[in-house]
Amino acid sequence: MSWKRWLLGSPLETSRLAEERLTVALALAVFASDALSSVAYATEEILLVLSTAGLAALNYSLPIALIITGLLALLIASYRQTVLAYPEGGGSYLVARENLGTMPGLVSAAALLIDYVLTVAVSSAAGVAAVTSALPALAGHKVAMGVLFVSIIAVANLRGVRESGRIFAIPTYTFIGSLVLLLAVGMWRATRGLPAIEAPVGVLQDATHAVTAFLLMRAFSSGCAALTGIEAISNGVKAFRPPETRNAATTQVIMGCILGTFFLGITWLAHVYAIVPGEGQTVISQLGRAVFGSGGLYFLLQAATAAILLVAANTAFAGFPRLTSILANDRFLPRQLATLGDRLVYSNGILILSAAAMLLLIVFQGDTHALIPLYAVGVFLAFTLSQAGMVRRHLRVRDGAYRMHAALSAAGAVATGAALVVIAITKFTHGAWIVVVLVPALVVSFLRTHRHYFYVRTQLSLIEMEPERPIRHTAIVPISAVNRATIYALRYAKSIAHEVEAVHVALDPRRAEMIQQQWRTWGGGVPLRMLESNYRSLITPLVDHIDDLMQGRRRNEMVTVVLPEFVTAHWWEGLFHNQSAFLIKGALLFRPGVVVTSVPFHFKR
Amino acid sequence: MSWKRWLLGSPLETSRLAEERLTVALALAVFASDALSSVAYATEEILLVLSTAGLAALNYSLPIALIITGLLALLIASYRQTVLAYPEGGGSYLVARENLGTMPGLVSAAALLIDYVLTVAVSSAAGVAAVTSALPALAGHKVAMGVLFVSIIAVANLRGVRESGRIFAIPTYTFIGSLVLLLAVGMWRATRGLPAIEAPVGVLQDATHAVTAFLLMRAFSSGCAALTGIEAISNGVKAFRPPETRNAATTQVIMGCILGTFFLGITWLAHVYAIVPGEGQTVISQLGRAVFGSGGLYFLLQAATAAILLVAANTAFAGFPRLTSILANDRFLPRQLATLGDRLVYSNGILILSAAAMLLLIVFQGDTHALIPLYAVGVFLAFTLSQAGMVRRHLRVRDGAYRMHAALSAAGAVATGAALVVIAITKFTHGAWIVVVLVPALVVSFLRTHRHYFYVRTQLSLIEMEPERPIRHTAIVPISAVNRATIYALRYAKSIAHEVEAVHVALDPRRAEMIQQQWRTWGGGVPLRMLESNYRSLITPLVDHIDDLMQGRRRNEMVTVVLPEFVTAHWWEGLFHNQSAFLIKGALLFRPGVVVTSVPFHFKR
Repeated sequence: MSWKRWLLGSPLETSRLAEERLTVALALAVFASDALSSVAYATEEILLVLSTAGLAALNYSLPIALIITGLLALLIASYRQTVLAYPEGGGSYLVARENLGTMPGLVSAAALLIDYVLTVAVSSAAGVAAVTSALPALAGHKVAMGVLFVSIIAVANLRGVRESGRIFAIPTYTFIGSLVLLLAVGMWRATRGLPAIEAPVGVLQDATHAVTAFLLMRAFSSGCAALTGIEAISNGVKAFRPPETRNAATTQVIMGCILGTFFLGITWLAHVYAIVPGEGQTVISQLGRAVFGSGGLYFLLQAATAAILLVAANTAFAGFPRLTSILANDRFLPRQLATLGDRLVYSNGILILSAAAMLLLIVFQGDTHALIPLYAVGVFLAFTLSQAGMVRRHLRVRDGAYRMHAALSAAGAVATGAALVVIAITKFTHGAWIVVVLVPALVVSFLRTHRHYFYVRTQLSLIEMEPERPIRHTAIVPISAVNRATIYALRYAKSIAHEVEAVHVALDPRRAEMIQQQWRTWGGGVPLRMLESNYRSLITPLVDHIDDLMQGRRRNEMVTVVLPEFVTAHWWEGLFHNQSAFLIKGALLFRPGVVVTSVPFHFKR
Repeated sequence: MSWKRWLLGSPLETSRLAEERLTVALALAVFASDALSSVAYATEEILLVLSTAGLAALNYSLPIALIITGLLALLIASYRQTVLAYPEGGGSYLVARENLGTMPGLVSAAALLIDYVLTVAVSSAAGVAAVTSALPALAGHKVAMGVLFVSIIAVANLRGVRESGRIFAIPTYTFIGSLVLLLAVGMWRATRGLPAIEAPVGVLQDATHAVTAFLLMRAFSSGCAALTGIEAISNGVKAFRPPETRNAATTQVIMGCILGTFFLGITWLAHVYAIVPGEGQTVISQLGRAVFGSGGLYFLLQAATAAILLVAANTAFAGFPRLTSILANDRFLPRQLATLGDRLVYSNGILILSAAAMLLLIVFQGDTHALIPLYAVGVFLAFTLSQAGMVRRHLRVRDGAYRMHAALSAAGAVATGAALVVIAITKFTHGAWIVVVLVPALVVSFLRTHRHYFYVRTQLSLIEMEPERPIRHTAIVPISAVNRATIYALRYAKSIAHEVEAVHVALDPRRAEMIQQQWRTWGGGVPLRMLESNYRSLITPLVDHIDDLMQGRRRNEMVTVVLPEFVTAHWWEGLFHNQSAFLIKGALLFRPGVVVTSVPFHFKR
């Protein structure tokens, strides 16, 4: 396991758990990067839809961006309330479950899980696009690069959340810095009427669509990708340094302000420079070349964009395992997802998330535009349910200015609900249907898992447990040869039961006779029963014999089948043996009152 | 398992084993088809090499075919002696092992195993080529068709050898009939000076080689593919009806005569009609169209050729499992290969052979020409060793005209040995190197397997077995919760050991406290020990505790770890449980004196 230690670090003591908390500055790097990084593709997705309707249609990009920014402000205000009300974290799932009931909670959870996976996939794909915009030679390796990036983030997260905060602080702040510079220089140049240093490369195709309401709504739906990720903080309040809620609420507001500024700024600059999305270069890349030229600043911008997109993928690595562990604690997912690994992170959740994201990258060929239609449905579903839940809560708890708070949450719920309907309809055939199918499928599997744990708990209950009666025990030792391993198994059987019987399934008459002879010397007084087998099956006669024995048994009568097990020095040698033991165990597993035991025989060299 | 029954038939009683024997006529279908079918590609492979040196070089095809036919006569005479001397069958492996020693025997076995796999692959590929020659539309599905054919033969063989004899008799005799017709009509037309009905399609490319000795030797090597498969009968004498040796020897001679006639006849006809190998049509196909035209007789010829090639693949399905079962009985291969399946065939050998052949077909894209260079090396290695062994045997046994017999075998050994050297050198870079690497690798694995079985036998031996002392027994019940399953496990533990101890690994202090409380009610007087775990590992503290217990133990002191095992109603529910039990078993497997037992707890619905 030394390579595992080298990659992931030594185990951490449980007592160090409390230390692994984030300051506001580190939390911004871990949790805000998802939302911030979406400016790298949100404007482009709006322009991509509008450009199908010709040059004039591009003028609609600014109004659409303004509507989305309004939605953002509403959401930030609403989520700030959520963070303050739920210091334990848990986000949409918890809020919806507590205030609306189990089913809305589970729907919300399913939606969020899907979106965490998509965050990783979309961010990796967009990060790769930022790299290939600057270095076109790499354009042929999109999928491989995406998968590699996901692996790197997965390893960083398996090492532990504090360390991942540190690793990712530098790129987040570099991105914020370089984007501020881009907007400042860009606006300064624009107001002074200076032309683009490098002309944009995107070419407007012939218009294939008219400017219809549906087209504008599609553009709006695409732009809504800008809002993905703003719920991350509410899920992760517990990861903040104390005072957790205050720090989390502050981080939430800072994030909202930066995100709104960047998104509007980029959309405005793209408008000023008349940028059209083009094959091979992202809108940000074209903007960078227009404002900075193809010099060092441009490459810094692209590097920082790629880097923050990877950090954004990292947000999901903070959120997904936390949500699965909450669901596992509520018995809607297998318990293994609730256990902390030896680096104090939920390793199983991290592994599942990275595997799912890699699969998406491979299936969709690492293409951001193909993944985007799947993206926003889940987020807006969770937004809507969460805020509807908050309305109910305000009206129930009735603290402070609860009317105003409830009105704010209600406005948010209505706005996001309306956006959800728009997104689901306009993007349905482009891939949103996958999410529409997956959410109920996940909910069903949550419920089946829950039912399983429920019946396990019921049947394990000690209520009406019958009083203890001493177990009457028969041991059966199936033997295929008389040798040291069999004799040890026999001796073990004699030590655990009063009645012991050896059985041999006679596949070969000569061998059966030899065994009977040897048994006189080595049997130690234990009777040897010969079982006939007409079809060369070892298992059937043995199982039939045990069924005969068990017939009419009382509850306190048991049969233990004692098998010799060969433990070999090399693993491949194990393949030569023990298949019969394996088959016997499988055949007897479902028979009540029968226990199968292997007595290991250890070979030396 | 009902689909398995439907596909393979019901189990057969062991007592029916003697019935499953072959008459000469059926044996010719089963064992001779490999050798006979090679005329479908042997001439073509010779012409393919010669054609690189221009038109005049094609004249060498007849002398080369004559040399190969001479070799054939020598081999048939020599193998007839082998069949008569070894009524138990076993062929090259047995002969080489008995007369030359273990290593030559194993080399011979390795060579034969490789060649059985290649027989299946080459015959399937050539069979597919016969089909695509007649129906060019199928040319794009070579690999899929090859894999399908191998599957069909595998299923036929899994049903049992007698039935496979019946299935394959018709195509073999149809092929013999249609080839006799082709040669008769072809010669008749040729002697009367009639031209080809359809002109051959093969086009002679510009000569790229000169007619050198090396080129002629390469052509000879390629043509030697005609001789593959003639050893099949000597491996399978036991499958004949009594008198086995006489029937086998007769079959051997009949086969040799037919093969020699066909090979020479086809090569001569190809010479007469000046046929050149061409893309998309085999030589036999071109010959068929020249002699019969593209009518019913031509399609019959192609169908029969394809069919016998598949029957030829079937020869390997008779030989390979027999040889692996002999090797397994000698403990050079895992014992599982020596067990008869429920249809009285060696099912494991059949499955391995078909998997390996399918892999070859996929890797070499179902191309006969690419597979041929790998083919003959192994066969001729086995021929040489077998006949060298026969020389030693004649000189040892000294029966009848032993001098003449020895001289005949010696001549065969020298001739095939010389051919082997020629083949290995001229085909080395074309793929023969693979076989040159594989043979020693297989021999090494035979020897390691043998050594393994040897040390198993030694260590299992009852010699110096210590006398029985009653085992002193401690049972340990690791519990993670107090429930019905744990209590059953505890009761079981009390029934098998005098000393019982429950242990709980305290991962969560609150839970540990709860368990201690419940234990007062349910523990039944068994002490409960709490184990600390600083790194959230369940396994390490438990294993450490057991190591402490085992320290300084005597040989008759044992620890049994009793675990509750959840048996769920649906298989997928099992994934939720028992992982800890699995890990505990794995961790304790290599500790002598420790037995791990699972007490199943059955969930109802």
